[in-house]
Amino acid sequence: MGKKIAALVTDLFEDVEYTDPVNAFQEAGHQITAIEKEAGKTVKGKKGQATVQIDKSIDDVNPSDFDALLLPGGFSPDQLRADERFVNFTKAFMDEKKPVFAICHGPQLLITAKTLEGRTATGYTSIKVDMEYAGANYKDEEVVVCQNQLVTSRTPDDLPAFNRESLKLLK
Amino acid sequence: MGKKIAALVTDLFEDVEYTDPVNAFQEAGHQITAIEKEAGKTVKGKKGQATVQIDKSIDDVNPSDFDALLLPGGFSPDQLRADERFVNFTKAFMDEKKPVFAICHGPQLLITAKTLEGRTATGYTSIKVDMEYAGANYKDEEVVVCQNQLVTSRTPDDLPAFNRESLKLLK
Repeated sequence: MGKKIAALVTDLFEDVEYTDPVNAFQEAGHQITAIEKEAGKTVKGKKGQATVQIDKSIDDVNPSDFDALLLPGGFSPDQLRADERFVNFTKAFMDEKKPVFAICHGPQLLITAKTLEGRTATGYTSIKVDMEYAGANYKDEEVVVCQNQLVTSRTPDDLPAFNRESLKLLK
Repeated sequence: MGKKIAALVTDLFEDVEYTDPVNAFQEAGHQITAIEKEAGKTVKGKKGQATVQIDKSIDDVNPSDFDALLLPGGFSPDQLRADERFVNFTKAFMDEKKPVFAICHGPQLLITAKTLEGRTATGYTSIKVDMEYAGANYKDEEVVVCQNQLVTSRTPDDLPAFNRESLKLLK
C-alpha cells in the first residue's frame, strides 16, 4: 500500500535532498505532496539543478492527511521555520510519532518545533551545536534512526542510507 | 582614534547588513577587514546587490589584531560556522569582552562558539529558539546591547539602531 508523504520545501533547498528521496519513495509506490505557502508556485534548488512545483498551500493541508513527513535541507528549512504554520505542521508528526525523514538542515524545523529533546539524531555539521542545545544526542553517522520513527542524515553523500532507512519505515 | 574591525563574511550574506554598518563605521574613521577562507576572493550577497572583496584569509589573522567584530547575516554565518576557524575567531572576541556586532543570522556563530549562555540578545526570528536553547535571554527588540559589549539586531530594518549602538562601543 502506498503511503502519503508530505514534503516541506521552499527556495534554496538542497536539490538532491528533495529529488533523490522523492524518486526513491515514488518508485516504491508512495505519493509525495510538496507543501509551501502557495500552491502552484515553483521553488528552486540552491544548486540550480532542480525545481519543484508546489502541490498544496500549508493552509490547505492537515497533518492527519499524511502518513509521513520529508524535510530536505539546504536553506529551505530555516526560511520555513520563520513561519509557525510549518513549525506546527512538523510538530504534529513528531507528537503523533509518525515517520519523519530530515536531512542536512532539515532538523532546524525539529529544533524550532522543540521536538528533539531526548532524541538521537544527526544533521549537517553547522547545526550540530544547535541540535545538542535542543536536547538531541547528536551522532556523526550517515543515518540515525531513533525510536523507529525519526530518520536523520547529514549531507547528500548520505542519501543512499537515508533513503534505505526511510523506506523501511514506510512498509 | 579609528578602531580595527574584523568582519566575517561569505557568499549569500544579507547585502545591506554588511554594506550599511561598514559604511557607517568607515565614515566614523574605523577600518574594516573582510575575512573569509581566501584573501582576494569576491563574495556575493544573497540579494545580488553587493559584493565584497576579501582582505584576509582566516589563516592570516589573529583576534588580537582587532578591536571589534562584525557578523552580518543572511546565509553567510551558517556556512562559516561549519569551519571551526571562524568559530574560534568569534569565541576569542567574546572571551576577551571585545565589542561584537551581530545582526540577523549573525548570532549563529555565537551559538556554535557557545558564547550566548546568560547573555541578553536578539536575532532573526528563525533562530530565536536556537538562541534560547543556547542560553540567551532573547528580546524581540530592534537592538539589544548586553554588558556594554554585545550588540544584536534582527533584520535590515533595524540597521539604524544597530549602527548607532555599535558606534557607541567604538568610541
